[in-house]
Amino acid sequence: MNFYKKLLSAARTNNSWLCVGLDPELSKIPPSFGSGVEAILKFNKTIIDLTGDLVCAYKPNAAFYEAHGVKGWETLHETIKYIPSHIPIILDCKRGDIGNTAKMYAQAAFDILGVDAVTVNPYMGKDSMEPFLNYKEKGVFVLCLTSNPSAAEIQRQTIHVNKSTSNSNLHNNSEMELFLRVAELVTEWNIDGNAGLVVGATKAGDLKAVRAKIGNEIPILIPGVGAQGGDLEQSISLGSNTAGEMAIINIARGVIYAGHDLDYRTAIRDAALNYRKNINSAIEKKRNA
Amino acid sequence: MNFYKKLLSAARTNNSWLCVGLDPELSKIPPSFGSGVEAILKFNKTIIDLTGDLVCAYKPNAAFYEAHGVKGWETLHETIKYIPSHIPIILDCKRGDIGNTAKMYAQAAFDILGVDAVTVNPYMGKDSMEPFLNYKEKGVFVLCLTSNPSAAEIQRQTIHVNKSTSNSNLHNNSEMELFLRVAELVTEWNIDGNAGLVVGATKAGDLKAVRAKIGNEIPILIPGVGAQGGDLEQSISLGSNTAGEMAIINIARGVIYAGHDLDYRTAIRDAALNYRKNINSAIEKKRNA
Repeated sequence: MNFYKKLLSAARTNNSWLCVGLDPELSKIPPSFGSGVEAILKFNKTIIDLTGDLVCAYKPNAAFYEAHGVKGWETLHETIKYIPSHIPIILDCKRGDIGNTAKMYAQAAFDILGVDAVTVNPYMGKDSMEPFLNYKEKGVFVLCLTSNPSAAEIQRQTIHVNKSTSNSNLHNNSEMELFLRVAELVTEWNIDGNAGLVVGATKAGDLKAVRAKIGNEIPILIPGVGAQGGDLEQSISLGSNTAGEMAIINIARGVIYAGHDLDYRTAIRDAALNYRKNINSAIEKKRNA
Repeated sequence: MNFYKKLLSAARTNNSWLCVGLDPELSKIPPSFGSGVEAILKFNKTIIDLTGDLVCAYKPNAAFYEAHGVKGWETLHETIKYIPSHIPIILDCKRGDIGNTAKMYAQAAFDILGVDAVTVNPYMGKDSMEPFLNYKEKGVFVLCLTSNPSAAEIQRQTIHVNKSTSNSNLHNNSEMELFLRVAELVTEWNIDGNAGLVVGATKAGDLKAVRAKIGNEIPILIPGVGAQGGDLEQSISLGSNTAGEMAIINIARGVIYAGHDLDYRTAIRDAALNYRKNINSAIEKKRNA
């Protein structure tokens, strides 16, 4: 089953477009899990046990495991193995390099770790994305627009787009912000229907523009709702397709650190239930609009 | 000692601006090293033994280790430990993410692996670079222009630069290709004198433009000479500073796979000697011009 179908199936089974980000920080894990890197795996397993019926995907962030060296990579492996096989796993690693090297990164994610999708950085263009996209059954979420203040420095620069076509001398010149050009390029790169986009949630108008560029089929992974302050209802309303689907709302801190005390289990599950409910309300509202 | 000084010191001690890329591929390693991932460490140690007096730096590429999972990360650790402490190590990992995550990547590279420098991807802007740059003793090479054909899709887009200054209403509008804007931004981000740039070697005129933007102090890491076809003499002539320094020529395949048969030791050392000689000839030529 390809990623697109696996994602849709999990979302419909769990009635959820909530993705839980597995970004474990030892200082934020409830003290009962212990203090060493071993605590991370126990904590992740607890999160997965508590939310496995409430999510469309899990998104472990590679950096939070790399920061613990070899033991961190072991923990990432074990976490991935523990996730039920019908829930897609998006490895947030934002890799990107020339072909030969990108092939190695794709191998690391898809063959060794066995995840269903990755996030990648488009700065080097199509041939740096192909080694990932060539895994036709896997998903490839291309970084488009992020929610940090400095995103403007590069992603929001206005570019002249010079689209020369190989079979004619016609040129179609237009101007747009770079992130919108990335969205256009992704539709061109998406030959096998396995591309997605990452668009931060802080400026909802941008989500609308991106969705308009890419049509209905391409999923958008939306971080930045919750701890980073983006607006959930707008993210769904503008980021989802006409059926109200394919906008994946990623929440990490808002779910996994919802509780620190003895009642952390209840707090985590309640947080996930609440996000799912709010996402579904926003979807309903869009469908009824 | 900060990275800049360590680099200069190694380059002057070994009379070399050659950086050897440690990109081990099992299929290309001489058969006498064996076939498992253990062969990689043995091979790397041999490369380091054969070239330790001929280089200004080593550049292990993270992807080639990640592709072997946990054992690959162990091999990367062991390789880094084996490199003599006076030779700087540039981890080619091209990481880039928002602040919180970038901090974890910086920790992984600088605190856990203990390398002297990293390569990073600028797509998310300054605040995604700061967690790396904040390690003032470490080097941070920002991806600027790469040598793959698709680099044009994003890096070579022409942008309108709107540089608004906070203390006046003056705006300085100009147009340039995105990679040159990245070079400008890096000079702004380089508050602690620990930034560098990565500029591929295939189009030497671009190196000249980048060096003109950044002045004399910032090192440029230049991959793409050799196996990827860039021109060595031009890379030095246009990429180095007025003293003929600070252009780091990275060679991976051209050195480490120089020999496959029983005489591979001689072939590897000869290749490194030859690259160093050609680099030094180009530097001499520039100084005498």
